[in-house]
Amino acid sequence: MASEAAPEGAPAKRANGPALTPQQVVLAADEPLRLDSGATLGPITVAYTTQGRLNADKSNAILICHALTGDQFVSGPHPTTGKPGWWDTMIGPGRPLDPERYFLICSNILGGCLGTTGPKDINPATGKPWGLDFPVITVGDMVNVQRLLVDHLGIGQLFCVIGGSMGGMQVLDWAVRYPERVFCAMPIASAARTSAQNIAHHEVGRQAVMADPDWCGGRYLEQGKRPHRGLAVARMGAHITYLSESALTRKFGRSLQAREQVTYGFDADFQVESYLRHQGITFVDRFDANSYLYITRATDYFDLAQEHGGVLSRAFRNTPVRFGVVSFTSDWMFPTLESRDLVKALNAVGANVAFVEVETDQGHDSFLMDIPDYHRIVHGFLEGAADHRGLKKP
Amino acid sequence: MASEAAPEGAPAKRANGPALTPQQVVLAADEPLRLDSGATLGPITVAYTTQGRLNADKSNAILICHALTGDQFVSGPHPTTGKPGWWDTMIGPGRPLDPERYFLICSNILGGCLGTTGPKDINPATGKPWGLDFPVITVGDMVNVQRLLVDHLGIGQLFCVIGGSMGGMQVLDWAVRYPERVFCAMPIASAARTSAQNIAHHEVGRQAVMADPDWCGGRYLEQGKRPHRGLAVARMGAHITYLSESALTRKFGRSLQAREQVTYGFDADFQVESYLRHQGITFVDRFDANSYLYITRATDYFDLAQEHGGVLSRAFRNTPVRFGVVSFTSDWMFPTLESRDLVKALNAVGANVAFVEVETDQGHDSFLMDIPDYHRIVHGFLEGAADHRGLKKP
Repeated sequence: MASEAAPEGAPAKRANGPALTPQQVVLAADEPLRLDSGATLGPITVAYTTQGRLNADKSNAILICHALTGDQFVSGPHPTTGKPGWWDTMIGPGRPLDPERYFLICSNILGGCLGTTGPKDINPATGKPWGLDFPVITVGDMVNVQRLLVDHLGIGQLFCVIGGSMGGMQVLDWAVRYPERVFCAMPIASAARTSAQNIAHHEVGRQAVMADPDWCGGRYLEQGKRPHRGLAVARMGAHITYLSESALTRKFGRSLQAREQVTYGFDADFQVESYLRHQGITFVDRFDANSYLYITRATDYFDLAQEHGGVLSRAFRNTPVRFGVVSFTSDWMFPTLESRDLVKALNAVGANVAFVEVETDQGHDSFLMDIPDYHRIVHGFLEGAADHRGLKKP
Repeated sequence: MASEAAPEGAPAKRANGPALTPQQVVLAADEPLRLDSGATLGPITVAYTTQGRLNADKSNAILICHALTGDQFVSGPHPTTGKPGWWDTMIGPGRPLDPERYFLICSNILGGCLGTTGPKDINPATGKPWGLDFPVITVGDMVNVQRLLVDHLGIGQLFCVIGGSMGGMQVLDWAVRYPERVFCAMPIASAARTSAQNIAHHEVGRQAVMADPDWCGGRYLEQGKRPHRGLAVARMGAHITYLSESALTRKFGRSLQAREQVTYGFDADFQVESYLRHQGITFVDRFDANSYLYITRATDYFDLAQEHGGVLSRAFRNTPVRFGVVSFTSDWMFPTLESRDLVKALNAVGANVAFVEVETDQGHDSFLMDIPDYHRIVHGFLEGAADHRGLKKP
């Protein structure tokens, strides 16, 4: 759920960090991965980036989990768009995620479209793109693939798993599935389950994609087509949910787009229309429509309490993980209420948890923003945990 | 902005009131209506319903203004769907809008698709459906057509103009445009201007319609097609905005649709998905896609302050109209803030205004719901105004 904050026509931001080197590894080659659905998948290609150096006792690794439409290029200029990575302002010397102190790992999620195996890749059984023959995946499956990568990198325990939105769901799934392999966990603007409202928004987006005749029942790649119009509509609708009413009013209000008065027509008279259209158009160039279906579906299925009789706290019983939970006041997609429910469940089992709600009008996208209070909180939590872990300062 | 509250499979509600008799009249035949855009339009057919009897001094008429996708069948069974009219619970003996006391008028808005002239009708200049050659209209144009109808009915001053959502915008436009012809006005769950967020939602809906190849550049009727898929997606997206997160959680939560566990597929596993799909499918049978474009556009353009140097209170200077403003706590589409801004503007010019915010979790759709507090407020405001107007009790 990464968006660009600048309206169309605003000067493009430049990345603070250096370009990251894309890396790939083939995993689950000898033994396919068993998915939550019961299906198996393998071999699986995982695309990832790293920054900084793993220390001698391999205790300084941070796994960064990206959101719905994010990717492994967390910082520096993005190799395809040229724009700064989605957490560019969070990463760098003196910043919360400091490559001089930590070894930062970020991989494209399973089902993604930037190098990790997903529905646009070739199904070895048919020699054609998977399309809808790709197995439906879960957030837990994404985490299991990340665990294979962490094994491959020879890391026993991650110092931290951190991420926002659906990235925060991966963080929580890590903590529940592999508590001994996570020293601390930071779920940001996230939740322990996907709400009815968010399932509803996802379903509208999927229907928009599937309503596009160029989707071809999921076989558009074979037919040389792309459901650009449907995917753009899905993105436009989703984009509204990432912002807040007050942010939209502050940024755009009822301002007109390069005109003195309305045209009495269906062109983009208002700046907010022009901005949304731009979001839709640029998204389809970088994202695969079937990946959008699979990843939103994985998010819908996320419900940590479900396997614990509907009682969330049981998922965390005896957890050794330290939790740092962050929410944002104007986030109506993942409201503070969801984070508070998570914190209550952690408290109920005596877990080590810090919780801060950050005051901002930027909506759900706040987790991507350079908000000083927010960055100070992430910085402080990691510093404190690093002291406990005995990590030396750089 | 009318939705059905019952989930798919719930027993269909039966109308309380009797079926209304559809009426039509041709207006602006001798002199075409000048629209806000500068274009002219005429003759204009207006479809409407009435209930009750106009009293001798014609002082008991209430004009009911419908919302985005509502129509003139305010109560009783709807002639095409068979479902209760959108305000069926508000209307009837002993109810706030009592036909034994008031003469109730409701007309399909200009640009609509249930009998009043709109883009699906024949353009006299070409002999073909208007399509996108229909002039872009405003809320003010809708009001001017209603004024022609009120003239035709021989009514000088309406006792009340009342409506919710975009219907409330018509109410406000009446009060500003024709203050001497409105004794009292009740804008419910409404605003004096359309917010950036609502323009954004409308734009996504329009893009969904226009992305459907069966839209045919607006000429689908000539080509024997209908953009059903695009319009259904638009409706699904809009429908989410009519509810609230807590209402969605209460009604559906993460409940599955007629199955014990998720299917790991793209069928409607969750009840909320099934419900939304149902909303989309049933909507396209009763609504014209181009009407959807024109009416959302008219709403976007609504901004009462604009012609008054951006100062809303100036629109109401010296107004003789009594205002009853109602908002709902969980309405995030037309939040209480918008009603409060309206009330502040009215107070600034010493207008007669009552304002109540109703506590409910039903979201924007609250204005359609049978919420006792809300109905009591409408009832009480009308009773008080009727006393001042000297209307006899039935």
